Amino acid sequence: MSRVRVHNFSVSLDGFGTGEGQSLEAPFGHAGQRLHEWFFATQTFQQMHGQGSGDTGVDNAIAGTWGDGIGAEIMGRNKFGPQRGPWENHEWNGWWGPDPVFHTPVFVLTHHPRPSVEMEGGTVFHFIDATPQEALRQAREAAGGLDVRIGGGPSTVREFLAADLVDHLHVTIVPIVLGRGIRLWDGLEDLEQRFDKVESVTTPSGVTHLTFARP
Amino acid sequence: MSRVRVHNFSVSLDGFGTGEGQSLEAPFGHAGQRLHEWFFATQTFQQMHGQGSGDTGVDNAIAGTWGDGIGAEIMGRNKFGPQRGPWENHEWNGWWGPDPVFHTPVFVLTHHPRPSVEMEGGTVFHFIDATPQEALRQAREAAGGLDVRIGGGPSTVREFLAADLVDHLHVTIVPIVLGRGIRLWDGLEDLEQRFDKVESVTTPSGVTHLTFARP
Repeated sequence: MSRVRVHNFSVSLDGFGTGEGQSLEAPFGHAGQRLHEWFFATQTFQQMHGQGSGDTGVDNAIAGTWGDGIGAEIMGRNKFGPQRGPWENHEWNGWWGPDPVFHTPVFVLTHHPRPSVEMEGGTVFHFIDATPQEALRQAREAAGGLDVRIGGGPSTVREFLAADLVDHLHVTIVPIVLGRGIRLWDGLEDLEQRFDKVESVTTPSGVTHLTFARP
Repeated sequence: MSRVRVHNFSVSLDGFGTGEGQSLEAPFGHAGQRLHEWFFATQTFQQMHGQGSGDTGVDNAIAGTWGDGIGAEIMGRNKFGPQRGPWENHEWNGWWGPDPVFHTPVFVLTHHPRPSVEMEGGTVFHFIDATPQEALRQAREAAGGLDVRIGGGPSTVREFLAADLVDHLHVTIVPIVLGRGIRLWDGLEDLEQRFDKVESVTTPSGVTHLTFARP
Protein backbone atom coordinates (compact mmCIF):
# COMPACT_ATOMS: atom_id res chain seq x y z
CA MET A 1 0.00 0.00 0.00
CA SER A 2 1.24 3.46 -0.76
CA ARG A 3 2.29 5.57 2.23
CA VAL A 4 0.82 8.80 3.53
CA ARG A 5 3.40 11.49 4.21
CA VAL A 6 3.73 14.94 5.71
CA HIS A 7 6.81 17.00 4.81
CA ASN A 8 8.32 20.32 5.82
CA PHE A 9 5.56 21.12 8.25
CA SER A 10 6.84 23.94 10.45
CA VAL A 11 5.65 24.57 13.97
CA SER A 12 6.70 27.03 16.65
CA LEU A 13 7.96 25.92 20.07
CA ASP A 14 4.42 26.30 21.32
CA GLY A 15 3.15 24.03 18.56
CA PHE A 16 1.44 26.50 16.25
CA GLY A 17 1.51 25.59 12.55
CA THR A 18 0.16 28.95 11.52
CA GLY A 19 -0.44 32.27 13.19
CA GLU A 20 -3.64 34.17 13.82
CA GLY A 21 -5.31 36.36 11.19
CA GLN A 22 -4.83 34.61 7.86
CA SER A 23 -5.52 36.83 4.86
CA LEU A 24 -4.63 37.08 1.19
CA GLU A 25 -1.57 39.12 2.10
CA ALA A 26 -0.67 37.02 5.14
CA PRO A 27 -1.17 33.30 4.45
CA PHE A 28 0.32 32.48 7.88
CA GLY A 29 -1.27 35.38 9.73
CA HIS A 30 0.83 37.15 12.32
CA ALA A 31 3.53 34.46 11.96
CA GLY A 32 4.53 36.15 8.72
CA GLN A 33 7.48 34.31 7.19
CA ARG A 34 9.00 33.31 10.52
CA LEU A 35 7.96 29.66 10.40
CA HIS A 36 9.40 29.13 6.93
CA GLU A 37 12.56 31.17 6.65
CA TRP A 38 14.62 27.98 6.91
CA PHE A 39 12.67 26.57 3.94
CA PHE A 40 12.75 29.66 1.76
CA ALA A 41 16.55 29.59 1.96
CA THR A 42 16.80 26.11 0.44
CA GLN A 43 17.52 25.24 -3.17
CA THR A 44 14.43 23.01 -3.03
CA PHE A 45 12.19 25.99 -2.38
CA GLN A 46 13.99 28.27 -4.83
CA GLN A 47 13.70 25.70 -7.61
CA MET A 48 10.03 25.03 -6.85
CA HIS A 49 9.47 28.69 -7.58
CA GLY A 50 11.62 28.88 -10.70
CA GLN A 51 14.62 30.52 -9.12
CA GLY A 52 18.10 29.19 -9.52
CA SER A 53 20.03 29.24 -6.32
CA GLY A 54 19.46 28.48 -2.67
CA ASP A 55 21.30 26.63 0.06
CA THR A 56 22.26 23.00 -0.49
CA GLY A 57 22.91 21.94 3.11
CA VAL A 58 21.07 19.59 5.41
CA ASP A 59 17.85 21.65 5.48
CA ASN A 60 17.75 21.37 1.72
CA ALA A 61 18.47 17.65 1.70
CA ILE A 62 15.59 17.02 4.08
CA ALA A 63 13.21 19.46 2.42
CA GLY A 64 14.00 18.01 -1.00
CA THR A 65 12.43 14.65 -0.25
CA TRP A 66 8.95 16.17 -0.22
CA GLY A 67 8.12 15.21 -3.80
CA ASP A 68 9.84 11.83 -4.14
CA GLY A 69 7.31 9.19 -5.08
CA ILE A 70 4.32 11.44 -4.41
CA GLY A 71 1.31 10.94 -6.70
CA ALA A 72 -1.25 13.24 -5.08
CA GLU A 73 -1.67 15.81 -2.34
CA ILE A 74 -4.50 16.48 0.07
CA MET A 75 -4.71 19.98 1.54
CA GLY A 76 -7.09 21.98 3.67
CA ARG A 77 -8.96 24.81 2.05
CA ASN A 78 -6.87 27.43 3.83
CA LYS A 79 -3.77 26.19 2.02
CA PHE A 80 -5.56 26.88 -1.26
CA GLY A 81 -6.73 30.36 -0.34
CA PRO A 82 -8.02 32.58 2.46
CA GLN A 83 -11.71 32.44 1.54
CA ARG A 84 -14.27 31.19 4.05
CA GLY A 85 -17.83 30.02 3.38
CA PRO A 86 -19.35 29.74 -0.12
CA TRP A 87 -16.99 30.67 -2.97
CA GLU A 88 -17.77 34.16 -4.20
CA ASN A 89 -16.45 33.26 -7.64
CA HIS A 90 -14.35 30.60 -9.30
CA GLU A 91 -11.92 32.94 -11.00
CA TRP A 92 -9.17 33.09 -8.42
CA ASN A 93 -7.37 29.77 -8.45
CA GLY A 94 -5.44 29.90 -5.23
CA TRP A 95 -2.19 31.17 -3.84
CA TRP A 96 -0.10 28.96 -6.09
CA GLY A 97 -0.08 30.85 -9.40
CA PRO A 98 -0.74 29.51 -12.91
CA ASP A 99 1.83 26.68 -12.59
CA PRO A 100 1.52 25.41 -8.98
CA VAL A 101 4.40 23.58 -7.39
CA PHE A 102 2.52 20.31 -6.93
CA HIS A 103 2.44 18.84 -10.46
CA THR A 104 -0.03 16.15 -9.34
CA PRO A 105 -3.72 15.96 -8.52
CA VAL A 106 -4.44 18.01 -5.38
CA PHE A 107 -7.54 17.36 -3.29
CA VAL A 108 -8.72 20.48 -1.50
CA LEU A 109 -10.94 19.71 1.49
CA THR A 110 -13.89 22.09 1.67
CA HIS A 111 -17.51 22.06 2.70
CA HIS A 112 -18.17 23.98 -0.51
CA PRO A 113 -17.24 21.83 -3.52
CA ARG A 114 -16.69 23.55 -6.87
CA PRO A 115 -15.60 22.29 -10.30
CA SER A 116 -12.09 20.90 -10.65
CA VAL A 117 -9.47 23.21 -12.13
CA GLU A 118 -6.64 22.02 -14.34
CA MET A 119 -3.58 24.21 -14.01
CA GLU A 120 -0.32 24.26 -15.95
CA GLY A 121 2.35 21.72 -15.15
CA GLY A 122 0.11 18.82 -14.18
CA THR A 123 -1.56 20.22 -11.07
CA VAL A 124 -5.31 19.58 -11.00
CA PHE A 125 -7.26 20.97 -8.04
CA HIS A 126 -10.25 18.87 -6.96
CA PHE A 127 -12.57 20.32 -4.33
CA ILE A 128 -14.17 17.69 -2.12
CA ASP A 129 -16.26 17.56 1.04
CA ALA A 130 -15.02 14.31 2.53
CA THR A 131 -13.75 12.59 5.66
CA PRO A 132 -10.02 11.99 5.88
CA GLN A 133 -10.60 8.33 5.00
CA GLU A 134 -12.67 9.13 1.91
CA ALA A 135 -10.32 11.90 0.78
CA LEU A 136 -7.43 9.48 1.11
CA ARG A 137 -9.29 6.84 -0.89
CA GLN A 138 -9.79 9.31 -3.74
CA ALA A 139 -6.22 10.60 -3.53
CA ARG A 140 -4.79 7.08 -3.56
CA GLU A 141 -6.82 6.26 -6.63
CA ALA A 142 -5.51 9.38 -8.36
CA ALA A 143 -1.94 8.71 -7.23
CA GLY A 144 -1.69 5.50 -9.24
CA GLY A 145 0.18 3.53 -6.60
CA LEU A 146 2.42 6.37 -5.51
CA ASP A 147 2.38 7.97 -2.05
CA VAL A 148 -0.05 10.65 -0.92
CA ARG A 149 1.15 13.82 0.77
CA ILE A 150 -0.93 15.63 3.37
CA GLY A 151 0.03 19.20 2.62
CA GLY A 152 -1.44 21.07 5.58
CA GLY A 153 -2.50 23.31 7.19
CA PRO A 154 -2.32 22.33 10.83
CA SER A 155 -6.00 21.38 11.17
CA THR A 156 -5.81 19.08 8.18
CA VAL A 157 -2.59 17.41 9.31
CA ARG A 158 -4.05 17.03 12.80
CA GLU A 159 -7.21 15.38 11.43
CA PHE A 160 -5.21 12.84 9.45
CA LEU A 161 -2.99 12.12 12.46
CA ALA A 162 -6.04 11.75 14.71
CA ALA A 163 -7.44 9.22 12.23
CA ASP A 164 -4.08 7.40 12.34
CA LEU A 165 -3.63 7.68 8.58
CA VAL A 166 -0.11 9.14 8.47
CA ASP A 167 2.96 6.93 7.99
CA HIS A 168 5.69 9.56 7.74
CA LEU A 169 5.48 12.84 9.64
CA HIS A 170 8.24 15.40 9.19
CA VAL A 171 7.80 18.42 11.44
CA THR A 172 10.28 21.29 11.61
CA ILE A 173 10.44 22.96 15.00
CA VAL A 174 11.32 26.64 14.71
CA PRO A 175 12.65 28.25 17.91
CA ILE A 176 10.05 30.98 18.19
CA VAL A 177 7.03 31.40 20.46
CA LEU A 178 4.02 32.41 18.34
CA GLY A 179 1.55 32.63 21.19
CA ARG A 180 -1.58 32.26 19.03
CA GLY A 181 -2.78 30.60 15.87
CA ILE A 182 -3.68 26.99 15.06
CA ARG A 183 -1.96 24.21 16.99
CA LEU A 184 -0.76 20.99 15.44
CA TRP A 185 -0.49 18.67 18.45
CA ASP A 186 -3.84 19.12 20.20
CA GLY A 187 -5.74 15.90 20.82
CA LEU A 188 -2.84 13.68 19.77
CA GLU A 189 -1.71 12.28 23.14
CA ASP A 190 0.86 9.49 22.79
CA LEU A 191 1.14 10.08 19.04
CA GLU A 192 4.77 8.96 19.08
CA GLN A 193 3.78 5.49 20.21
CA ARG A 194 2.21 4.74 16.84
CA PHE A 195 5.53 5.05 15.05
CA ASP A 196 8.52 2.73 14.94
CA LYS A 197 11.09 5.36 14.31
CA VAL A 198 11.48 8.78 15.91
CA GLU A 199 14.40 10.89 14.72
CA SER A 200 15.47 14.46 15.43
CA VAL A 201 18.26 16.57 14.04
CA THR A 202 19.09 20.21 14.55
CA THR A 203 20.68 22.02 11.64
CA PRO A 204 22.87 25.13 11.51
CA SER A 205 19.84 27.28 10.63
CA GLY A 206 18.65 26.61 14.19
CA VAL A 207 15.59 24.52 13.38
CA THR A 208 15.05 20.93 14.48
CA HIS A 209 13.72 18.39 12.02
CA LEU A 210 11.62 15.74 13.74
CA THR A 211 10.45 12.63 11.91
CA PHE A 212 7.95 10.02 13.06
CA ALA A 213 7.87 7.08 10.65
CA ARG A 214 6.52 3.57 10.23
CA PRO A 215 6.75 1.19 7.31
CA MET B 1 24.23 41.72 38.56
CA SER B 2 23.92 37.99 39.04
CA ARG B 3 22.01 36.11 36.33
CA VAL B 4 18.76 34.19 36.59
CA ARG B 5 18.90 30.75 35.02
CA VAL B 6 16.66 27.83 34.16
CA HIS B 7 18.31 24.45 33.49
CA ASN B 8 17.25 21.01 32.35
CA PHE B 9 13.62 21.97 32.03
CA SER B 10 11.97 19.26 29.95
CA VAL B 11 8.89 19.81 27.81
CA SER B 12 6.97 17.60 25.43
CA LEU B 13 6.46 18.49 21.77
CA ASP B 14 3.14 20.01 22.76
CA GLY B 15 4.87 22.15 25.37
CA PHE B 16 3.83 20.46 28.60
CA GLY B 17 6.36 20.66 31.43
CA THR B 18 4.42 18.19 33.55
CA GLY B 19 1.51 15.84 33.01
CA GLU B 20 -1.92 15.79 34.59
CA GLY B 21 -2.64 14.25 37.98
CA GLN B 22 0.36 15.04 40.18
CA SER B 23 0.52 12.95 43.37
CA LEU B 24 3.05 11.77 45.92
CA GLU B 25 3.70 8.69 43.80
CA ALA B 26 3.62 10.56 40.49
CA PRO B 27 5.39 13.93 40.74
CA PHE B 28 4.91 14.47 36.98
CA GLY B 29 1.41 12.99 36.80
CA HIS B 30 0.60 10.86 33.79
CA ALA B 31 3.89 11.88 32.17
CA GLY B 32 5.60 9.44 34.53
CA GLN B 33 9.34 9.43 33.85
CA ARG B 34 9.01 10.10 30.14
CA LEU B 35 10.07 13.75 30.25
CA HIS B 36 13.23 12.99 32.21
CA GLU B 37 14.60 9.68 30.98
CA TRP B 38 17.35 11.55 29.15
CA PHE B 39 18.34 13.24 32.44
CA PHE B 40 18.15 10.16 34.66
CA ALA B 41 20.69 8.48 32.37
CA THR B 42 23.33 11.15 32.93
CA GLN B 43 26.23 11.02 35.35
CA THR B 44 25.08 14.43 36.61
CA PHE B 45 21.79 12.99 37.79
CA GLN B 46 23.32 9.78 39.13
CA GLN B 47 25.86 11.73 41.19
CA MET B 48 23.22 14.16 42.46
CA HIS B 49 21.53 11.12 43.96
CA GLY B 50 24.65 9.48 45.32
CA GLN B 51 25.06 6.90 42.64
CA GLY B 52 28.31 6.33 40.84
CA SER B 53 27.84 5.88 37.14
CA GLY B 54 25.76 7.36 34.35
CA ASP B 55 26.40 8.54 30.82
CA THR B 56 29.05 11.15 30.18
CA GLY B 57 28.00 12.32 26.71
CA VAL B 58 26.54 15.58 25.49
CA ASP B 59 23.35 15.32 27.54
CA ASN B 60 25.50 15.04 30.64
CA ALA B 61 27.74 17.93 29.67
CA ILE B 62 24.73 20.18 29.21
CA ALA B 63 22.88 18.93 32.29
CA GLY B 64 25.99 19.30 34.41
CA THR B 65 26.07 23.07 34.13
CA TRP B 66 22.95 23.38 36.29
CA GLY B 67 24.83 24.07 39.52
CA ASP B 68 27.79 26.15 38.31
CA GLY B 69 27.80 29.49 40.10
CA ILE B 70 24.32 29.05 41.56
CA GLY B 71 23.76 30.54 45.02
CA ALA B 72 20.02 29.99 45.47
CA GLU B 73 17.02 28.36 43.85
CA ILE B 74 13.41 29.48 43.56
CA MET B 75 10.82 26.77 43.01
CA GLY B 76 7.06 26.45 42.92
CA ARG B 77 5.35 24.64 45.73
CA ASN B 78 4.58 21.64 43.50
CA LYS B 79 8.28 20.99 43.07
CA PHE B 80 8.54 20.71 46.83
CA GLY B 81 5.61 18.38 47.27
CA PRO B 82 2.11 17.49 46.05
CA GLN B 83 0.15 19.20 48.84
CA ARG B 84 -2.40 21.87 48.02
CA GLY B 85 -3.93 24.45 50.35
CA PRO B 86 -2.91 24.89 54.00
CA TRP B 87 -0.14 22.54 55.17
CA GLU B 88 -1.61 19.67 57.15
CA ASN B 89 1.61 19.30 59.09
CA HIS B 90 5.23 20.38 58.88
CA GLU B 91 6.74 16.96 59.31
CA TRP B 92 7.11 15.92 55.68
CA ASN B 93 9.93 17.95 54.18
CA GLY B 94 9.41 17.42 50.50
CA TRP B 95 10.28 15.03 47.76
CA TRP B 96 13.99 15.62 48.09
CA GLY B 97 14.97 13.45 51.08
CA PRO B 98 17.08 14.39 54.10
CA ASP B 99 20.00 15.69 51.97
CA PRO B 100 18.38 17.50 49.01
CA VAL B 101 20.35 17.99 45.82
CA PHE B 102 20.32 21.78 45.98
CA HIS B 103 22.92 22.56 48.71
CA THR B 104 21.85 26.24 48.74
CA PRO B 105 18.94 28.26 50.08
CA VAL B 106 15.76 27.30 48.23
CA PHE B 107 12.78 29.65 48.13
CA VAL B 108 9.50 27.74 47.79
CA LEU B 109 6.68 29.92 46.46
CA THR B 110 3.44 29.26 48.31
CA HIS B 111 0.38 31.15 49.47
CA HIS B 112 0.81 29.29 52.78
CA PRO B 113 4.14 30.26 54.38
CA ARG B 114 5.58 27.99 57.09
CA PRO B 115 8.81 28.05 59.10
CA SER B 116 12.06 27.55 57.22
CA VAL B 117 13.60 24.09 57.33
CA GLU B 118 17.32 23.45 57.38
CA MET B 119 18.22 20.15 55.76
CA GLU B 120 21.51 18.29 55.54
CA GLY B 121 24.10 19.38 53.02
CA GLY B 122 23.38 23.10 53.04
CA THR B 123 19.86 23.14 51.62
CA VAL B 124 17.53 25.46 53.54
CA PHE B 125 13.91 25.64 52.42
CA HIS B 126 12.24 29.03 52.88
CA PHE B 127 8.51 29.27 52.22
CA ILE B 128 7.41 32.63 50.90
CA ASP B 129 4.29 34.20 49.44
CA ALA B 130 5.84 36.68 47.04
CA THR B 131 5.76 38.07 43.52
CA PRO B 132 8.49 36.87 41.16
CA GLN B 133 10.29 40.19 41.63
CA GLU B 134 10.21 39.99 45.43
CA ALA B 135 11.15 36.31 45.48
CA LEU B 136 14.11 37.11 43.25
CA ARG B 137 15.17 39.97 45.49
CA GLN B 138 15.25 37.62 48.48
CA ALA B 139 16.98 34.85 46.54
CA ARG B 140 19.63 37.24 45.23
CA GLU B 141 20.32 38.44 48.72
CA ALA B 142 20.71 34.85 49.91
CA ALA B 143 22.85 33.91 46.90
CA GLY B 144 25.64 36.27 47.90
CA GLY B 145 26.39 37.52 44.41
CA LEU B 146 26.00 34.18 42.72
CA ASP B 147 23.30 33.33 40.16
CA VAL B 148 19.75 32.32 41.00
CA ARG B 149 18.16 29.25 39.43
CA ILE B 150 14.44 29.06 38.74
CA GLY B 151 13.84 25.39 39.37
CA GLY B 152 10.31 24.89 38.06
CA GLY B 153 7.66 23.67 37.68
CA PRO B 154 6.21 25.02 34.47
CA SER B 155 3.93 27.61 36.06
CA THR B 156 6.81 29.06 38.06
CA VAL B 157 9.16 29.19 35.08
CA ARG B 158 6.40 30.75 32.99
CA GLU B 159 5.76 33.44 35.60
CA PHE B 160 9.43 34.41 35.72
CA LEU B 161 9.62 34.45 31.92
CA ALA B 162 6.45 36.55 31.71
CA ALA B 163 8.04 39.03 34.14
CA ASP B 164 11.15 39.06 31.89
CA LEU B 165 13.40 38.03 34.77
CA VAL B 166 15.20 35.08 33.12
CA ASP B 167 18.63 35.50 31.46
CA HIS B 168 19.41 31.89 30.57
CA LEU B 169 16.66 29.43 29.64
CA HIS B 170 17.62 25.84 28.88
CA VAL B 171 14.65 23.76 27.75
CA THR B 172 14.92 20.14 26.67
CA ILE B 173 12.36 19.13 24.09
CA VAL B 174 11.42 15.47 24.40
CA PRO B 175 9.79 13.94 21.29
CA ILE B 176 6.56 12.82 22.92
CA VAL B 177 3.04 14.23 22.80
CA LEU B 178 1.67 14.43 26.36
CA GLY B 179 -1.73 15.84 25.45
CA ARG B 180 -2.49 17.30 28.88
CA GLY B 181 -0.78 18.83 31.87
CA ILE B 182 0.73 22.25 32.47
CA ARG B 183 2.15 24.15 29.51
CA LEU B 184 5.35 26.16 29.62
CA TRP B 185 4.94 28.51 26.65
CA ASP B 186 1.46 29.96 27.13
CA GLY B 187 1.33 33.75 27.19
CA LEU B 188 4.94 34.15 26.10
CA GLU B 189 4.50 35.37 22.52
CA ASP B 190 7.77 36.53 20.94
CA LEU B 191 9.77 35.32 23.94
CA GLU B 192 12.77 34.59 21.70
CA GLN B 193 13.08 38.26 20.79
CA ARG B 194 14.20 39.10 24.31
CA PHE B 195 17.35 37.01 23.98
CA ASP B 196 20.55 37.59 22.04
CA LYS B 197 21.45 34.01 21.54
CA VAL B 198 19.21 31.10 20.56
CA GLU B 199 20.88 27.71 20.24
CA SER B 200 19.56 24.22 19.61
CA VAL B 201 21.26 20.86 19.53
CA THR B 202 19.84 17.38 19.21
CA THR B 203 21.71 14.62 21.00
CA PRO B 204 21.83 10.87 20.36
CA SER B 205 19.22 10.28 23.09
CA GLY B 206 16.75 11.97 20.76
CA VAL B 207 16.07 15.10 22.78
CA THR B 208 16.76 18.65 21.63
CA HIS B 209 18.41 21.10 23.99
CA LEU B 210 17.25 24.65 23.34
CA THR B 211 18.93 27.62 24.98
CA PHE B 212 17.80 31.24 25.04
CA ALA B 213 20.43 33.46 26.60
CA ARG B 214 21.39 37.08 27.15
CA PRO B 215 24.30 38.62 29.02
